[in-house]
Amino acid sequence: MSHEKEVLQNYGLLDLLKSDEKLRLETEQLAKDAAACLGLALKDAELPDAFGSVPVTLLPSVTSQQALKDVLDLQKDINVMMHKVSHDQEFLTTALAGVSSVDNFIRHLLDIYNKIDIDSQYELEFIRSDYLLHCDGTELSFLDAVRKGIYKQVEVNMICIAFAGLSSKMNDVHERVLRFLGGTPISKEPSGNVLELYGATMAKAKEIYEKVHPPAKGRPQILLTVIHKDERNVMDQRMVEFKSGLTCLRRTFQQIAEKGILEDGRLIVEDKEVAVVYYRTGYAPPHYESEKDWDTRLMIEQSFALKCPSVAHQLSGFKKIQQELSRPEVLQKYVSSKSVQEAMLKTCVGQWDVSSPHSREMVDKAMAHPELFVLKPNREGGGNNFYDAAVVSKLREVVGTDQAKEFILMERILPPLQENYLVRPTGLLLVPTVSEIGVFGAIITKGNDVLVNEYAKDVLVRTKAFDVGEGGVATGYACLSSAMVL
Amino acid sequence: MSHEKEVLQNYGLLDLLKSDEKLRLETEQLAKDAAACLGLALKDAELPDAFGSVPVTLLPSVTSQQALKDVLDLQKDINVMMHKVSHDQEFLTTALAGVSSVDNFIRHLLDIYNKIDIDSQYELEFIRSDYLLHCDGTELSFLDAVRKGIYKQVEVNMICIAFAGLSSKMNDVHERVLRFLGGTPISKEPSGNVLELYGATMAKAKEIYEKVHPPAKGRPQILLTVIHKDERNVMDQRMVEFKSGLTCLRRTFQQIAEKGILEDGRLIVEDKEVAVVYYRTGYAPPHYESEKDWDTRLMIEQSFALKCPSVAHQLSGFKKIQQELSRPEVLQKYVSSKSVQEAMLKTCVGQWDVSSPHSREMVDKAMAHPELFVLKPNREGGGNNFYDAAVVSKLREVVGTDQAKEFILMERILPPLQENYLVRPTGLLLVPTVSEIGVFGAIITKGNDVLVNEYAKDVLVRTKAFDVGEGGVATGYACLSSAMVL
Repeated sequence: MSHEKEVLQNYGLLDLLKSDEKLRLETEQLAKDAAACLGLALKDAELPDAFGSVPVTLLPSVTSQQALKDVLDLQKDINVMMHKVSHDQEFLTTALAGVSSVDNFIRHLLDIYNKIDIDSQYELEFIRSDYLLHCDGTELSFLDAVRKGIYKQVEVNMICIAFAGLSSKMNDVHERVLRFLGGTPISKEPSGNVLELYGATMAKAKEIYEKVHPPAKGRPQILLTVIHKDERNVMDQRMVEFKSGLTCLRRTFQQIAEKGILEDGRLIVEDKEVAVVYYRTGYAPPHYESEKDWDTRLMIEQSFALKCPSVAHQLSGFKKIQQELSRPEVLQKYVSSKSVQEAMLKTCVGQWDVSSPHSREMVDKAMAHPELFVLKPNREGGGNNFYDAAVVSKLREVVGTDQAKEFILMERILPPLQENYLVRPTGLLLVPTVSEIGVFGAIITKGNDVLVNEYAKDVLVRTKAFDVGEGGVATGYACLSSAMVL
Repeated sequence: MSHEKEVLQNYGLLDLLKSDEKLRLETEQLAKDAAACLGLALKDAELPDAFGSVPVTLLPSVTSQQALKDVLDLQKDINVMMHKVSHDQEFLTTALAGVSSVDNFIRHLLDIYNKIDIDSQYELEFIRSDYLLHCDGTELSFLDAVRKGIYKQVEVNMICIAFAGLSSKMNDVHERVLRFLGGTPISKEPSGNVLELYGATMAKAKEIYEKVHPPAKGRPQILLTVIHKDERNVMDQRMVEFKSGLTCLRRTFQQIAEKGILEDGRLIVEDKEVAVVYYRTGYAPPHYESEKDWDTRLMIEQSFALKCPSVAHQLSGFKKIQQELSRPEVLQKYVSSKSVQEAMLKTCVGQWDVSSPHSREMVDKAMAHPELFVLKPNREGGGNNFYDAAVVSKLREVVGTDQAKEFILMERILPPLQENYLVRPTGLLLVPTVSEIGVFGAIITKGNDVLVNEYAKDVLVRTKAFDVGEGGVATGYACLSSAMVL
C-alpha cells in the first residue's frame, strides 16, 4: 500500500470508531494504558504517590509533509537568529522599552540582562517554534486543506520548553492504537529523537563547563533544575534529566536562595557545583514570589553555569521581538541568506502594535472583522488571548490608553479542522480539532560562536477542540498527539 | 575500577543513605519518578484514571554471579522437563490423585486435562523458576554469605507469569539511582530482554497458528488475554501484549462465555479468531466464580488456540509435582543428562508429604525445630505459608486427618539478609531483606516436538522484609529490585 493510502486508511478509522461504541471505549482504554506504560503521566495535584493519565488524541493528527519539511528546514536558522537577537543589546532594549515601562516582569529581566556581560558566557538553549497550519480556502475538504496548507508561526518559545519527554512517546502510543484498529502504523524515524537530542545537548553543556572550570574542592558538578513548588508535569522534566545522565537537583528559587552562593563565579548549591541550570519555572510573573526570587535569578545569571535559558535568550522570546522580526528590514539584520529570510517571512502572520499610530488602519479593520484577528497580551506562557467579540471590546477598552502597549494585534490563522476523539479523564470527546506543532531546537553558544546547533525531526503535536482559545496539556486544554503526514 | 569494587562501592551507598535523611528522601523521590517514567505503575483500586507507584527497593540486591549462572544454565532443561511431565498423563494423574480428592480446584483441572488430546495441540508456555539464595553459615558477613550461597528452588510457576514487563525496567530505575548517588551503574546486558523474549515468543505462537489455520471468513486472528475483573497490575500485562505486536482483546471468563464459541476447533470471540490465549487469571479457586467459568475454560482448552498455559502445563506446576521431581528416581524419567539431574537436585530442598507415614520422622523434627521448616499449602498463587510456631500448631491440627494431604513440609531456605530501603507508598522502610529471583523461560511445543526453547538473562528480583512470609508486589508485600552480582 502506498504511504498516502495508508494515511487515508488510518484517517478513515474515525468512521469505524464513530459507528462502534464498544470498540471506541476499548480503544480509549488501550490508549490510556499504552500512555501509562510509556510513562506519560501527570502527578496528582493532591496525593503524593498518585499519577493521572495525560490527555491524548485517539488518532494521529494529519498534516502536510511539505509544510512540515519547510519549517523543520528553518529551525537551525531560527536557533542562530534568536541567539543573535538576544545578544543585540541595543535592539532588545529599544524594542522592549515600551513594554518594559508598563510590565514589571520584563523590566526585571532587562535589569538583570544589563548587569551581565552576556557575550562572555557559555549558554545552553532549548527552543521550540510553534506553528499552526493555515489554509484560507474554507470551501476545501479537510484533507485538501491540509495538502494546500502552510505553517504559520504562533510563537518562538525560549524558556521552559515542555514535552520533549512526553511527546517523544506519542508515536508509540498511536502505533499501538492503529495496530489495534487494524490500521497501518506509519513507519517513521525511530521515535524519541527529541529526548535524545535534549539529553545529549545537556550532557555536552556539562562537558564544556567541566573543561573550562575543572572540578574543585571535591565538589561534584551537577545539573540544577529550577522548579515550581506544585509542578504536575514532573515526568516530562525527569525524562530530560535522566536522559542527560547528569546528577540533578530539583530546587525552587527559595531553596536555591537558602543554600546557594556564588564562589568566584561558581554557583554552589548544597555544596555541589552547578554546571547547568535548567529552568522549568520563571517564565511568568507569579513564578517570582518576591524581590528575593529576582535576586536569586540574578545570582544564577551571574554564575559560570550554562543557563537554559540565559536571561538574554529568554528576553528574545517575547512577542514584541517576534513582531519586530516579522518586519523584513529587521529580520535581515540577523539572517544573512535572502532565501532563508523569505522562507521565514512566509511563516509570519501580520502583527501590529496596538499602541502605535501606524496600526490605526488595522485596529479599525479588527473592530469590523474580529474573526480574522487575535488580540494577544505581550507576555510568555499563555494567558488570555482575545477572539471574536472579545477583540472588539478589549480594543475599545485599551486603545488610546497606556495599556495599549501590552497588546499585539495579530492576523488570525485559519487551520483545517480535523474531527478526532480527545481522550480525557472525563471521557471521550468527539470534536473538530486544531493541531499546533512545535519544532524543537537546541544550541550551545558563546558570544558569536555557535558550538552546537541542532533540531529534532520529531515534533510536538498538541491538539485542541477548535473552539478552545488557549491553554496547555498539563492544564487540560490540549491533548498530546502525533503527526501523520500526507 | 574492578567490577567487584564497583559492586562493593554501590553496596556501601547504604551507609551514605543512612547518615543523610535529606539525601535519602530525595533519592526516594527520584526512584519513584524514575519508575513512573518507565511505566512502572499499578492501577488505582478505585479511581479509573489514576495510577500508583510500584514498590521498589532503593538499592539493587546483591547476589552471586556463579549461583545465578548455575540456575540460568538450567532453565532450558527445566522448560523441557516441565513440558514432558505435563504430557505424562499417568504420572500427573497418579501424583495429583491424593490432592485431587480433597481439592476441588485441582480436580476441575484434571477433568479438563482428561478430556483433551493434549499431544495433538500446539502449546505456548511462559515459565518462571523462583529461587532463594541459601547459605547456612550464620556466622558469615552478608557479602561472604552471598559469595558462598547457592540458589534453592522455591517453586516453578507455570501460569500467570507476572513481571516480565515491569521488572524489565528495574535495571534502568537503579541505574538512575546509582548515578544520582555517585555510584557506578553496573554495566549489564541491555535491559528488557525478558519483555523482548515474551513478546517475540507470543508473536511466533501466532505465526504458527496462522500457518496451520489460515484465516477464514475474513476474521482477524488475535491474542486473547483472560483477566480478572479488578486487576491492578495492568501495565505489566499490557507491556507483554504491546511487545507482541498482536491485536489483543482483554476479557473475563464471563465475557468469553457470552460472546465466544467453538467453530470446528477455532475459538471465535466477538467475531475474531483467537490464535493465542494469555491467562492472567485462572490460577486460584476464586478466579472461577461458577461451573460456567470451568465450562469456558474447557471450551478454550478444546480449541486450536495456543494456550499460555495449557491445562497440562498448568497442572505440572503444582507443588506436589515439584515435590515428586525432587526425588532422583522420578527426575531421571524426564531429564536424561546425569549432570543436569545433579545440578537440578542441588537446587532442591527437602520436601515431605505431611500425610505420608514415611514423613513421620521429619514431621517430628519440624515440631521440635520449626525454624528449619516451612509448611505450605499444596496450591499455586501464594496464600498462607506457616513458619516457626505456626508450623507446630498447624501440624498438630492436620496430622492424622484428611487435611494433611493439602500440606507439604519443606526444608527452610536460609537466605543472606541484605539491609536495604524499601520504597513504598507509606514511606521508606529500612530492613534486613530477602531477595527471591525468578528465571524466565519460554517454550512452544507440540507433543514431543519442542519448537522454541528459550530463557531470558534478565531475572525478576523481588525483595521483602526478612520477617514477611509471603505475598506479591501487587499486594504490597514485596518490592521490585534488580540484581547486582558479585
